[in-house]
Amino acid sequence: MKLNFSSLTTLRVRYGETDQMGYCYYGNYAQYFEVGRVEALRDIGMSYKSLEDRGIMLPVVDFKVNYKAPAKYDDNLTIHTEITETKGPRLTFNYTITNELGETIAISTTTLVFVSKKTMLPKSPPKDFLKLMLPYEIKV
Amino acid sequence: MKLNFSSLTTLRVRYGETDQMGYCYYGNYAQYFEVGRVEALRDIGMSYKSLEDRGIMLPVVDFKVNYKAPAKYDDNLTIHTEITETKGPRLTFNYTITNELGETIAISTTTLVFVSKKTMLPKSPPKDFLKLMLPYEIKV
Amino acid sequence: MKLNFSSLTTLRVRYGETDQMGYCYYGNYAQYFEVGRVEALRDIGMSYKSLEDRGIMLPVVDFKVNYKAPAKYDDNLTIHTEITETKGPRLTFNYTITNELGETIAISTTTLVFVSKKTMLPKSPPKDFLKLMLPYEIKV
Amino acid sequence: MKLNFSSLTTLRVRYGETDQMGYCYYGNYAQYFEVGRVEALRDIGMSYKSLEDRGIMLPVVDFKVNYKAPAKYDDNLTIHTEITETKGPRLTFNYTITNELGETIAISTTTLVFVSKKTMLPKSPPKDFLKLMLPYEIKV
Repeated sequence: MKLNFSSLTTLRVRYGETDQMGYCYYGNYAQYFEVGRVEALRDIGMSYKSLEDRGIMLPVVDFKVNYKAPAKYDDNLTIHTEITETKGPRLTFNYTITNELGETIAISTTTLVFVSKKTMLPKSPPKDFLKLMLPYEIKV
Repeated sequence: MKLNFSSLTTLRVRYGETDQMGYCYYGNYAQYFEVGRVEALRDIGMSYKSLEDRGIMLPVVDFKVNYKAPAKYDDNLTIHTEITETKGPRLTFNYTITNELGETIAISTTTLVFVSKKTMLPKSPPKDFLKLMLPYEIKV
Repeated sequence: MKLNFSSLTTLRVRYGETDQMGYCYYGNYAQYFEVGRVEALRDIGMSYKSLEDRGIMLPVVDFKVNYKAPAKYDDNLTIHTEITETKGPRLTFNYTITNELGETIAISTTTLVFVSKKTMLPKSPPKDFLKLMLPYEIKV
Repeated sequence: MKLNFSSLTTLRVRYGETDQMGYCYYGNYAQYFEVGRVEALRDIGMSYKSLEDRGIMLPVVDFKVNYKAPAKYDDNLTIHTEITETKGPRLTFNYTITNELGETIAISTTTLVFVSKKTMLPKSPPKDFLKLMLPYEIKV
């Protein structure tokens, strides 16, 4: 099912996240996207923490990022996170990070898989999660 | 120019690189791939450090990773790094990470761009770098 | 001069900051304390970024932390940061981190040194910084 | 019991571990010290991983570090780790990091506590661990 839910969150680039190029290190964006999707899930009414407490994990299986412009120390970044699709056990998020000047810093897609902690096998998304997503379904 | 240079390096998953899922956090692989390409450049005879000392930076502009199986704490991972193409200012690396059992943990591609520190603009690869790559050119 | 300036900031423990013990990794607190002191400096009216822009760096020379209780994923932590002393080129911060239940998670002290980017030597704090600190001087 | 076991390990400063000051970020040393103590435990014959597999964790409760000189990108650092004391549930390590020129980069002490995963309470060190440490006891 194609989805159309989006959420905004902001964070500031920490000093320890820069590298000697003077920019935010390319590897630190993975944490920023994680913050984006965790806040998107909280916004929709199901925190990632509550999922894990119920024995469901959401590991990332696919991650793509295109770096458009450098983020710098102390930049106040906005992460625009979209939940775009759930298909079988898979859940897909798109992200766009912009800085205070409105410049696009990075765009990214991650695919995660619902996994049972007990069996360590992929599973369908919980029914109450799907119910929360229903209002955001894109009917083709 | 299509290239065919490859290099092996190993590293151990640190405790601080795991997350509460009990696996290496997906965001830490970016550092592993960086170690892979830094050692590949050293193997070919031009350390990344020496490039920066000459005023040339190599920021990542594109990064894709597909997670096949989890890496665990204390795993001794092998990073197989290939330099696959140089095209204009761009340089592309492919990576495969395997564990001690020979399982594939992750595959990845990064595209980097040669940038002049002075002008902050993309530039052609240094001539001596291209000369070092010549023996690895794939003639079509 | 002994000082008495304090500042509060909050942050949430990120998933990537946990380790397989299920707690925030002990090494990640250094970033939390950095966030604390950066916000304390901003509160007092002199952002760390503006200091660097003027050619002044503040590397940490001494760092102590006592871990009282674990911080967990998604905990919303409060960092209470105090600027306690400036002596020659040195500036000392104390920190207390608490969680939402009011439990003390960690206490810490860092000593930083004002360093000139040009000479790479320690230097006195900038006069306008000392002026901003004056109202917080503890007269013995 | 006072101990006198020491171990050497080396690692290279990764690009992602530098910050825009051009040095290894002060927060990343915690991982270096962790590598030092993990290799020290492996050298003595009891890997940290095997301890966790037996239901014993070793969280850090106290951490002090004194930064003497900056570590730089690509520096090949030597970590000299000493196991200095075991007292009740506590285990203390000292560390000295030096670079290739023999300069001292940082000195540190960490105190860890043996904790049972089941009860989450401090416990005495395992008997086989104490047996391995016996040859290194300093008789006063």
